[in-house]
Amino acid sequence: MLTDIKALTFDVFGTVVDWRSGVAQEAMALLAPKGFERDWGAFADRWRARYVPAMERVRKGERPWASLDDLHRENLVGLLEEEGIGGLSEDEVDQLNHAWHRLDPWPDVVEGLTRLKRRYVIATLSNGNVALTVSMAKRAGLPWDVILGAEVARAYKPAPAAYDRAVELLRIAPGECLMTAAHTYDLDAAATRGLRTAYVHRPLEYGPDKADRRRPEPDAYDVTADSFTELADKLGC
Amino acid sequence: MLTDIKALTFDVFGTVVDWRSGVAQEAMALLAPKGFERDWGAFADRWRARYVPAMERVRKGERPWASLDDLHRENLVGLLEEEGIGGLSEDEVDQLNHAWHRLDPWPDVVEGLTRLKRRYVIATLSNGNVALTVSMAKRAGLPWDVILGAEVARAYKPAPAAYDRAVELLRIAPGECLMTAAHTYDLDAAATRGLRTAYVHRPLEYGPDKADRRRPEPDAYDVTADSFTELADKLGC
Repeated sequence: MLTDIKALTFDVFGTVVDWRSGVAQEAMALLAPKGFERDWGAFADRWRARYVPAMERVRKGERPWASLDDLHRENLVGLLEEEGIGGLSEDEVDQLNHAWHRLDPWPDVVEGLTRLKRRYVIATLSNGNVALTVSMAKRAGLPWDVILGAEVARAYKPAPAAYDRAVELLRIAPGECLMTAAHTYDLDAAATRGLRTAYVHRPLEYGPDKADRRRPEPDAYDVTADSFTELADKLGC
Repeated sequence: MLTDIKALTFDVFGTVVDWRSGVAQEAMALLAPKGFERDWGAFADRWRARYVPAMERVRKGERPWASLDDLHRENLVGLLEEEGIGGLSEDEVDQLNHAWHRLDPWPDVVEGLTRLKRRYVIATLSNGNVALTVSMAKRAGLPWDVILGAEVARAYKPAPAAYDRAVELLRIAPGECLMTAAHTYDLDAAATRGLRTAYVHRPLEYGPDKADRRRPEPDAYDVTADSFTELADKLGC
């Protein structure tokens, strides 16, 4: 059934990298020495929570195209204000904003991608912009064949154009592309465009307190795995 | 002077890979057993010669966007007709057209790119489309960080937008980008957009009979080298 697959496209934040721990650590490292104290994981959650509404405005055409680096920075400035965290220089705000470039992959990712890359084209299909995705990949050793996604498509997932443009650039049929993500909304949107789907369970994405995250039904997607190495096993890589 | 460089963008055909030998070999392998005889290097030259006029029509808006894979194929069909080479199946035409996906790099390329990649973002900035560039890279082991170029910019070099879009996606200043090519027209166009320039001499690009290809003046570009390993040396990698 999956013998026709030629390329795997990957969601990145949550699926490939642990954004919550990385952002929390960098926020704490910058802000705790300045006397700010809080639950930094929850701070990361609140930053992340501003992401969907910000993209939504781009998606609806209420504002011109803006890259995720720019949306993250606007969201950070708004969050710092709301939290009463002041006195940061522009450079410090930039530095904290670039925490999203320095996220660690889940432990199975590099081995899994390396194995999958031997047989398939492996591509990012993230809402992260190109520069962010490249700088993350270099630091973390993620061996992507090609960086696709929102900025190249000028469309944020789950807009259909985000998936359509990836398939078009790869010059494959939608059914030859396996969208891989830890998020059902992303896989469901990909499936409506004819892509195949692989769900990877990432129970720690939202922190240890939310590790009981519900799994989808076993047959909801073409493949289900607990790690990229298990995904590679299931695809015979 | 080059201490500000953050990324190297590379022309591909001629600069990274030896298109003439690869195309000539595949044409001979397919067509000689069918009884067609000619100088296959010159056949490759005639195929390549149709490339600039075909792109020019896209560049001038005389036809809608078409990827290089599609232009190559149209050009091949026209060339075969002109040469009186008939009787090929559609699959055989496709197979020969994909010779451009299976080109070998010059001998210094993989080592040079591997060294350059440690310090810089290395990106393609080719007129080759994404799928072509990815499939070439996988076969040849070219360790690109990111595939940019004409298809992502929807503009064929030497159009300004091809260079501008690469710099925009990398989120760097034009002066932080070193355009690397064996062709002066490409470097000259990049320089008008503010990019820095590295000339790499590839005397065998047009075959051994044209190996006396003239070098540009020594100070015409920011860096001049005879190989990617020499370029890495000069950049201290």
